[in-house]
Amino acid sequence: MSNVKALPLIETAEQSGVAPCCPPLTERPMTAGEAEVAARMFKALGDPVRLRLFSAVASHEGGEACVCDISDVGVSQPTVSHHLKKLKEAGLLTSERRGTWVYYRVEPSVLAAMGRILASASAAA
Amino acid sequence: MSNVKALPLIETAEQSGVAPCCPPLTERPMTAGEAEVAARMFKALGDPVRLRLFSAVASHEGGEACVCDISDVGVSQPTVSHHLKKLKEAGLLTSERRGTWVYYRVEPSVLAAMGRILASASAAA
Repeated sequence: MSNVKALPLIETAEQSGVAPCCPPLTERPMTAGEAEVAARMFKALGDPVRLRLFSAVASHEGGEACVCDISDVGVSQPTVSHHLKKLKEAGLLTSERRGTWVYYRVEPSVLAAMGRILASASAAA
Repeated sequence: MSNVKALPLIETAEQSGVAPCCPPLTERPMTAGEAEVAARMFKALGDPVRLRLFSAVASHEGGEACVCDISDVGVSQPTVSHHLKKLKEAGLLTSERRGTWVYYRVEPSVLAAMGRILASASAAA
């Protein structure tokens, strides 16, 4: 990881919590640093339960949801909280406490970046 | 997995090797079956080395590459082959043997499906 630390791209991602990453897949081979950032985002969606929870938040009224809103995916509430935390760590969700509950919201810039990586690739293929 | 087997979506994906999946993230919560298919694709891109290899194939001249073309990511050739196999199993690459080498090509329909899932989400957010 020592060589990755030197990349400004990674520092920005670490500072902001979101990643302004990466080039379209068809443009050029990704660098090690870019792949590190992008793979972290894809990996966060690489679990079926996590993906269902993420889509539950994304499709919820107003674009946000609390644990109380999305407990119908067949796992316990601690498990739901665990996965939401993982999605937040990956920069895909933001959260805000209001009263008793923590509300989660999709981070649009990160999703847009992931979509751009893939959409360009498929358009050019 | 027994309840997943009953979904036509999964059967189609298994038959064709590519997944005509899934609804945009903002549309409605994904079902268990949809999330199973989509998570498999995202997980395949959730490894930095695999993602670099995938972008190397996607950005290579003519949209295809053999192991001999993309050996500069700092891992051994057997490791490259292993990751290419994983990407193929996930339906993201197709392969064809021509002479000595196996040539890999990006599967555009799968990438388009992944892009659609994410792009719609970010546009609506």
